[in-house]
This record gives sequence, C-alpha cells and structure tokens, in this order.
Amino acid sequence: MISANLTTIKFLQQSTSQQWLEQALAHLDTILLDHSHCERKAAGVAINLMFRYPSHAKLVRSLTAIAQEELEHFEQVNQILEQRGIPLAPLASPPYGAGLSKQIRAKEPDRLLDSLLVCGLIEARSHERLGLLGAHCPEPALAKFYRGLMASEARHYGVYWVLATTFFDRSLVAQRLEALAAIESQLLTNLYSEPRMHS
Amino acid sequence: MISANLTTIKFLQQSTSQQWLEQALAHLDTILLDHSHCERKAAGVAINLMFRYPSHAKLVRSLTAIAQEELEHFEQVNQILEQRGIPLAPLASPPYGAGLSKQIRAKEPDRLLDSLLVCGLIEARSHERLGLLGAHCPEPALAKFYRGLMASEARHYGVYWVLATTFFDRSLVAQRLEALAAIESQLLTNLYSEPRMHS
Repeated sequence: MISANLTTIKFLQQSTSQQWLEQALAHLDTILLDHSHCERKAAGVAINLMFRYPSHAKLVRSLTAIAQEELEHFEQVNQILEQRGIPLAPLASPPYGAGLSKQIRAKEPDRLLDSLLVCGLIEARSHERLGLLGAHCPEPALAKFYRGLMASEARHYGVYWVLATTFFDRSLVAQRLEALAAIESQLLTNLYSEPRMHS
Repeated sequence: MISANLTTIKFLQQSTSQQWLEQALAHLDTILLDHSHCERKAAGVAINLMFRYPSHAKLVRSLTAIAQEELEHFEQVNQILEQRGIPLAPLASPPYGAGLSKQIRAKEPDRLLDSLLVCGLIEARSHERLGLLGAHCPEPALAKFYRGLMASEARHYGVYWVLATTFFDRSLVAQRLEALAAIESQLLTNLYSEPRMHS
C-alpha cells in the first residue's frame, strides 16, 4: 500500500494512485527523461514570471532562487541520463500542464494569483511523486537521488504560497487554491497512457 | 581616450564609442537597472534555446551553465539595486536586441547557427562594455563589480562560438559571424537616446 503524506502536502486534494507508481517504476528511464523536461520547464516558467512582473522585488528574488535550483536539478537529472546512456530527446507532454494553464485567468491581478497557485500545485505534486519514487524505486542510488530532490520541491511550493499571500488576501488565496487543487486532482484521475511525472 | 581591447574581443568589428561611455557614466543607476534586465533576458534566451533543441546534449549542458551564471549575476545586480534604493522597474529596450533578432533566419539549421552567433555577439559586446565600466566607473566598489563580471561574459561568448563550430563547419561559422558582426556594429553607430547597456 502506497500513500503520500498528505498532511505535509496540504495543496493536494487527492493522493497519487497506485497505478501511477506502478507505471512509473516499470518505465524508470522514460520517467527520468520526462523529469529532465519538467525541471527545464519549471526554470523557464519561473523566469517567464519574472519577465511578466519585473517590478515585484520579492517575487523576482524568490523566483530567481527557484529558477537556479531547477537548473541545478535539470543538470543533475541530465547527468543521470548520460550515465544510463539515455539520449536527450523530446517527449510529448501529458495533458496535465496544459489543463492547469487553461485555468489561469487572463486578467490581472487574477493572472498573477492563478499563475503562482498553479506553479505551487505542480511543485506540490512533483514533491509527492518524487517522494513515492524515493520510497519505492528498486535502484538504491536513484531512490536516494529522488529523496534528495524532495526537500527543494517542498520549499518551492511553500515559496509560491508565500508569494501568493504576499500579494493577495489570505482567504482569497485559500479559496482559489481549493478550486484549482480540485481541478489538479481531477486532471490526474485517468492515468495518461504514457509514463510521465504528471501522467 | 578609451578603447576596448579588440584583440581579445574578436567578435566585434567596431569598438564602443566615447559617447556611450559618457552617457553610461552619467546615468549609472539606469545602466544598473538595464543591466539587471539584460541578465534576466540572457538567462531566458539560453533556456529558450534549450527548449528548441532538447536533443543536443552538448548544447543543453553548456546553456544550462550559462543560464545559471546569468541568474547569479541577475541576483547580484538586483542586490546592488536594492542597496542603492533603486526599485525594480520595466525599462524600454533599445533597438539593438530586436535588430539582431531580426537577422536570425527562420529555417533550420540556419536558425540555430544565427541564434548562437547573435547570443555570442551580445555577450561579446557586454564583455567589452562591462570592461569599460570596470575601468572608468568613478565608484570603486561598482567598478570592481563590473570587472568581476567580465570574465564570465568572455567565457560565454567563447561557449557560443564553440557550440556554433560544434554543429557547423568552421568556415561557414566565420563567414556568418562576419556578416552578423557588421550588423551588430552598425546597430550601435547612432547612440540610443536613453542610457542602456546596449544603447
């Protein structure tokens, strides 16, 4: 029986299914390649947010640190891919990211709030799933690597939460998070046919 | 009399004018704010290139390192801005970047070659101008900061050159670089009215 520790992952409304873990453990190489793309995307998203809000000093400072860490993880995952002889290659994305992006309202300041919460939710889900891989991956070195990444991902979703409550009223943030978190869990209800971090 | 050391900055066909240096030294705060934007943009461009060519392991590795360094500089410049009480704010870009981007041919593999060389040229120009600021800035601490950044910028244009010659024939690279470098110098012939790193 697997279950993520939802008391520490308050963002998430439903825990990851056994099916996802089985799919991931059966395709560790593909999960690693997809993980590489996820880290690069996370760095890109953080930098794009800084581009959009260049005057928000606290946001810029926090997102710089996040982008730096994501790039560091990207580099680490790519080294593991190289050690395993897995060539870098594009991979089709599961519907998860696009499904969440669609929820970001176009008008400011809604757009900022939604962007921060969607990033926070993705980080929270990554944290949960890296934790599952860290606990259940049959290769000790890889399991250790996943456990090592968990702490940063947890810090990241904390940062997105803090940023949201810096710019918006706490009750408004909590209310919007609940709505987005319901959609986030919904998007993962049907396992995507290809193994992915967010299938 | 100022003059950049063009023997070590082979990418550039014309050295920066006295007028630019005078404009920059008269507006150090604006130059710092624009510099912050330049570092963030440089990180963004490196990450976008990785997105576009996710299978090129050498390119991905080199650009990850560049993006990490640019983010580090971005953070350093932002700390200086904070110390000086300069709030982060958007700034209109001079025509330089857009003028260079327009030269990037749309069709692959030309697009990759041109993208690498345009990035290299911008890094080379930044290196030259940071060197001028490092030599002539009347504030010793700021002058030292600029001199400290020069080495990385020099390494960066070296990396873009190496990547170009990894994927393309050396004589083709040299020929295209010459054409782009002529345009790069041309774009700086008339000083932009607002003080910028690339005015």
